[in-house]
Amino acid sequence: MANFSTFDTQMMSRAIALAEKGRYTTRPNPCVGCVIVANGQIIGEGYHQRAGQGHAEVNALKMVRDNGFSAQDATAYVTLEPCSHYGRTPPCALGLINAKVARVVIAVTDANPQVAGRGISMLRDAGIQVDIGLLTEQAYALNLGFMKRMKTGLPWVTVKIAASLDGKTALSNGVSKWITGDAARADVQKYRARHCALITGVETILVDDPSLNVRYEALGELTTCHTQEDIFQPLRVVLDSQARLTSAQQLFSIQSPILLVSGCAYSDKVKIDFPQHVDFLQLECDSSGRIPLLALLTYLGQHSNSVLVEAGATLAGAFVAQGLADEVVLYQAAKLLGSHGRNMLQLPDYSAMDQTPSLQLIDERSIGQDKRYILRYNQSY
Amino acid sequence: MANFSTFDTQMMSRAIALAEKGRYTTRPNPCVGCVIVANGQIIGEGYHQRAGQGHAEVNALKMVRDNGFSAQDATAYVTLEPCSHYGRTPPCALGLINAKVARVVIAVTDANPQVAGRGISMLRDAGIQVDIGLLTEQAYALNLGFMKRMKTGLPWVTVKIAASLDGKTALSNGVSKWITGDAARADVQKYRARHCALITGVETILVDDPSLNVRYEALGELTTCHTQEDIFQPLRVVLDSQARLTSAQQLFSIQSPILLVSGCAYSDKVKIDFPQHVDFLQLECDSSGRIPLLALLTYLGQHSNSVLVEAGATLAGAFVAQGLADEVVLYQAAKLLGSHGRNMLQLPDYSAMDQTPSLQLIDERSIGQDKRYILRYNQSY
Repeated sequence: MANFSTFDTQMMSRAIALAEKGRYTTRPNPCVGCVIVANGQIIGEGYHQRAGQGHAEVNALKMVRDNGFSAQDATAYVTLEPCSHYGRTPPCALGLINAKVARVVIAVTDANPQVAGRGISMLRDAGIQVDIGLLTEQAYALNLGFMKRMKTGLPWVTVKIAASLDGKTALSNGVSKWITGDAARADVQKYRARHCALITGVETILVDDPSLNVRYEALGELTTCHTQEDIFQPLRVVLDSQARLTSAQQLFSIQSPILLVSGCAYSDKVKIDFPQHVDFLQLECDSSGRIPLLALLTYLGQHSNSVLVEAGATLAGAFVAQGLADEVVLYQAAKLLGSHGRNMLQLPDYSAMDQTPSLQLIDERSIGQDKRYILRYNQSY
Repeated sequence: MANFSTFDTQMMSRAIALAEKGRYTTRPNPCVGCVIVANGQIIGEGYHQRAGQGHAEVNALKMVRDNGFSAQDATAYVTLEPCSHYGRTPPCALGLINAKVARVVIAVTDANPQVAGRGISMLRDAGIQVDIGLLTEQAYALNLGFMKRMKTGLPWVTVKIAASLDGKTALSNGVSKWITGDAARADVQKYRARHCALITGVETILVDDPSLNVRYEALGELTTCHTQEDIFQPLRVVLDSQARLTSAQQLFSIQSPILLVSGCAYSDKVKIDFPQHVDFLQLECDSSGRIPLLALLTYLGQHSNSVLVEAGATLAGAFVAQGLADEVVLYQAAKLLGSHGRNMLQLPDYSAMDQTPSLQLIDERSIGQDKRYILRYNQSY
C-alpha cells in the first residue's frame, strides 16, 4: 500500500462524503465520489447521482472546467477504481488521462469483472501515478450490495425484524401494531428506499395486507435533499409458492413493480386481473414445497444489488438458516409479549451453541424509544 | 416542601453516597447515611453498616465527638427519617435531640409503620427545625426493597433473565452455557449479593444443578471494600411443589440457608438426609398444582426486603403475569438461538397489545459484550 498523507486522507474523506450523497439514487450503479486537487486546493468535485448520468470523475472534471481551472498535473481522489469500459458513458479512466492528471488515488478497486484492475492499468499505462488503498473499508461500505453482486452474482440480503425484548414479532393472533415506535418505522422506510428489492411471503400479504412501498413523507430529513422522484420504489417480491394471491390485495394498487414468485402458474382467470406492473416468476419448489431461495437470489442478482427481507419467522429464518442473509437489522422495543407471541426467526433445532448463527454485532443505537441492532456475518465479498 | 440551598443538596448527596456504602451489608435494615454540618463545615458523618450495629446518626454523632466538635446548633442531613423507637439501639431522633442540633434535613420519611412521622414529631417537639423532601427520589432508590416490605409486607421482586436477541434462554435441549459473557455473569453475582433471597424452581435445580450462591471472588471491585464475611449469602428458596428433591444436589453442599417450599411433605427418609442449613415450608398448592406465589412472598416478607427470581420461563413468567414482579433485569447477548430455543417468559396468550405487561425501561447499559436492561412496573410503594 502506498504511503498516504493526512491531506490525502482528508481529500478521500471528502470524496466518500460526496459518494454518500448518491446512496438513495445511483442503483443499480455504485456510489462513487471524486475530488480533484491542484496546489493543495480543491478545484473540482463530483459524485455519481443516477444510473445513465455522469460518473463521479466526469462530474468533477466538468466542475474543474466550469470553474476555469485545468486538471493538468492535478491529483484525483476517487472512491472506486475509474471504469475502463464504454457503457452508457465513455470510460472515466480515459477522461482522467485526457485531462492530464498526474496522480490518481483510489480507495477501492472495482469488483465488476468488466473493470477490475483495467482502469488502473489504463491510467498507469498513460504514465499517471496511481495509489491504491486509502480508506478502503469506508469506501467499500458505500457499496456492499454492488460489490457482492459483482463478485457473486447475488444481491446483498438484509433481514429486517421488529420485535419485543423477548423476541416476539406479534401476539399469537398476529396483532403487531405497534411493537416499535414511529421513529423505528420511519427508519424502516429508509431501509426500503436504500434496497433494490423487498422480499416478503404470501402469508404476510394475506394477513397484514401491507403496501410495502416507500412513503416519501415518512423519509424525514431525506426529503430535504431528495425529491419524491429521486426516491426509488424497491421491486416488491412476494413468495407465493402455491399461487394463492389475487389482485384484491392493497399491494397491487400502488403503481410500482411487483414480482410474484410461485412454484406453479397462476390460473389465467386470476392472472388477467393483476395490473400491468406485476411480473411473474415460476421456480420449481424444493422438496418441502418452498421457493428455492438461492435460485430466487440468483434471479434477482441480475438487476438488484440488495434485497430487504420483511417477512415472518419462516421465511426470514430460512434466509438466516441457509446462510443467505448478510445482515440482520433488528428493531427492538422494550416490551414483553410472552411465550405465546410469534417468534422472530424459525431456525433449525440446534443442539450446541456453536451451531447457532455466527453473527457479529456491528452497530447498535437508539431509534426513538426503540433500539436498533445491526448484525452481520463475518464474510467478505 | 422546604426551600433547599445548593449547599443543602451537596450535603444530602454526600449522605446518600455514604448510605450506598451499606448497600451489601445492612439488610434487613435500610441503607442510611448522615452528614452533620456546623458553620458550613462537615464535622461528622456516618452510615449504617450492619443490622445490630450503630445507625447512621449515631455513627455521625460519634465522629463529631471523636473529632472534638459539638453538634450543638449544627444541621444534620439524613437520608431516612430518624427512628423513634427503642430497637437494638436507642432512637436516633433522641440522639439528635440530646446533641442539641438546630436543624434536621430529611430525604425520605420512614415507611416503617412503627416509625413513620414519629421521628419527625419527636424532633419538632424538641424545637428542632425539620425540613423534609430533599433528593427524595435518590434516597428512596437506596431502599426500594425495605420501603416496599414496610408498606406492603412483601419483598421487592426482581426477575433476572439471560437471553439471546431473539429472547431465548437456552437451546431446546437446555444448553445455555454460555449465552451471556463473563461480565454479565459477574454482574448477576452482585445482584445475588444485594438480594435477601433467591427463588428458583426444582427443574432448574434438577437440570442445571447450580449452587446459587454468591462467589466472593466473582464480585470484582466490591472485594476491595468488603471482606468475604461482609457479603451475605441470600436465602436460597427452591419451589418443589411435588417434594421431588433429594440431598444429592450441589446446592446443598454450600453452607448457607436453603428453604425448600413444597405442596406436600418430603418423606422422612429423604428429609433426614438434608443438611442442617435446610428449612422446609409447606404451602397448599393452587388448583394448577403450583406453589401460590403471593403466599410465598408474604412468608418471605417477614424477613426479606428483596428476592431475586432466577428461574425458567414458567416460574419467571408467573411472577410477571401475576403482577408480583417489580423489576425485570434482562441480560441480552447479541446471539440468535432460533425458534426452537427456550422462551424467557411464559405469559398468558394476550389478544391485544395493551394486555401485555406495562413495564417501563428505566436503565440500559453495556455489560461487557452484552446489554443489560432494567424494566420496572409503574408502581410506587
